[in-house]
Amino acid sequence: MSNPHFNRLALIGLGLIGSSIARVCKERGLVDEVIGCAPSQATRDKALEIGFADRVFEDPAEAVAGADLVILCSPLGTFKAIARQIGGALKQGAIVSDAGSTKSSVIDALAPHLPDGVHLVPGHPVAGTEHSGPEAGFADLFIDRFCILTPPKGADAGAVGRLRAFWEACGSDVEIMDPHHHDRVLAITSHLPHLIAYTIVGTAGDLEGQLEREDAESTEMVATREVIKYSAGGFRDFTRIAGSDPIMWRDVFLNNKEAVLEMLGRFSEDLVALQRAIRWGEGEKLEEWFRHTREVRRGVIEMRQAGSFSPLEPHAQDEEPGGAD
Amino acid sequence: MSNPHFNRLALIGLGLIGSSIARVCKERGLVDEVIGCAPSQATRDKALEIGFADRVFEDPAEAVAGADLVILCSPLGTFKAIARQIGGALKQGAIVSDAGSTKSSVIDALAPHLPDGVHLVPGHPVAGTEHSGPEAGFADLFIDRFCILTPPKGADAGAVGRLRAFWEACGSDVEIMDPHHHDRVLAITSHLPHLIAYTIVGTAGDLEGQLEREDAESTEMVATREVIKYSAGGFRDFTRIAGSDPIMWRDVFLNNKEAVLEMLGRFSEDLVALQRAIRWGEGEKLEEWFRHTREVRRGVIEMRQAGSFSPLEPHAQDEEPGGAD
Repeated sequence: MSNPHFNRLALIGLGLIGSSIARVCKERGLVDEVIGCAPSQATRDKALEIGFADRVFEDPAEAVAGADLVILCSPLGTFKAIARQIGGALKQGAIVSDAGSTKSSVIDALAPHLPDGVHLVPGHPVAGTEHSGPEAGFADLFIDRFCILTPPKGADAGAVGRLRAFWEACGSDVEIMDPHHHDRVLAITSHLPHLIAYTIVGTAGDLEGQLEREDAESTEMVATREVIKYSAGGFRDFTRIAGSDPIMWRDVFLNNKEAVLEMLGRFSEDLVALQRAIRWGEGEKLEEWFRHTREVRRGVIEMRQAGSFSPLEPHAQDEEPGGAD
Repeated sequence: MSNPHFNRLALIGLGLIGSSIARVCKERGLVDEVIGCAPSQATRDKALEIGFADRVFEDPAEAVAGADLVILCSPLGTFKAIARQIGGALKQGAIVSDAGSTKSSVIDALAPHLPDGVHLVPGHPVAGTEHSGPEAGFADLFIDRFCILTPPKGADAGAVGRLRAFWEACGSDVEIMDPHHHDRVLAITSHLPHLIAYTIVGTAGDLEGQLEREDAESTEMVATREVIKYSAGGFRDFTRIAGSDPIMWRDVFLNNKEAVLEMLGRFSEDLVALQRAIRWGEGEKLEEWFRHTREVRRGVIEMRQAGSFSPLEPHAQDEEPGGAD
């Protein structure tokens, strides 16, 4: 196994993910020095105040100077500009990685601007919460979560091995995957679920405006306060997802357009089929579909993705009751 | 406040909800006797074995004889036939209620078959888990959950008061609502979220079959094992909802067709608008939408629907991290 230790880590972006990486590195002594970079003075001050960064810079080029490992943790839309800025300042032999939720677009954005002798190994820690910002991070965020590395063809095996060791030392299960394949898998497991949750929460929210324009006594109208009040029936699970960072998610959809639109097309076909079954009262068709999805759910439970709830496993709350009635 | 106590309670249906009502009644001494009714011998045996029912019957008419309170806890599709069976056997002054997730259809199914002097007060405990059956129930299921009562016009105020007192004694917050209004509120807060979750989980599940027919080495294909493996990114929240009881949910959609189709129409319009924004790279439109939904999420948190996780509050796990990246 490779050595997970790096002398100097530069984190570009100090939100939930960046500040969590910094925290786990400090807690476990994975690096000698953490350099933080953020465009906002308030964020940089907070990083020093909390103490997860040793030095902070506004300019990415200054931040990466002398770093052995650089991880971009800012929204995907910033990557190209950052790559242009840091390209000339990177140390020979440095590893450049990221924490973005799409991977093909990251290679397209970064690769052209990195000099020879610098190793690009994009990564995606599949972990997060609905909260954002440098105060939202915590050292245990990555424990038992997957981190998917998507080295481009011809990537240096030593660099991939070191980054794998680093993420394993952060507590993650590391998987190596083709970038294009990653984008398709995540389109269905993460991006489409987020898009759908964003949609329905917005649809429900818009009913409020309608109420104000009409007779508040009418039984036809549904108030958002009521939507929220009775959200335990299923809606609430969607609001948690739809509370995720707007900028980050805007960029995810713009950077994984093709796969998201394909999965959305499949989803829409299926939704129309179920809609038609409801309209025509085709109970058997509905029941058959729902039995099938229950089997998928069993698969999730069997694969132990659904463990008992623990604060260390942000997503592992599925064994608990939920989402019925 | 009315007296929450009943001499004899008859529960038609002994699954998650029925067996939970029985358990809380036993635990809190809310009734003198619990009569259970289920078509399956195994369920009836289980009810006696666990001890939440004192006597059990296969025939609903026998079960309701002499009961002061009758609660239908079977799937909505069974209500009309049960009403026909029990109509002539009901005790004068008895209250007939239910635990169904739709309410207009329940009044249509039950009211014509109930004799004068019997009080129909439909109810909907907004509580549940993804698990089904007599062993899935627990006495604390209704604590701090809403129970919505939808008495028809002209309902006896005394009967409504007694049923309210009963549910409050079970730990619920009771609300009185117009049946039609209930069906619209729940269509958006519960039925549509379930339909969407069922859809996407099926869509993802179907990718497995595709894999088997094609080159497993292709990066184009996504295996269901991968869908499940990386489900922490958002999908897993949907599988929990889509693991709910197939028969129950088939009947919900068939019995609240009008409201579900209306809400689904609104949702589909919004989804197409977001799809178009993604296709044309309209980042501002996406960001604006996502900021709006984050506000709705804040509303959920502020209304204290999102408390800290506790096994007693099956749905109150929202403060925990989830659904990001």
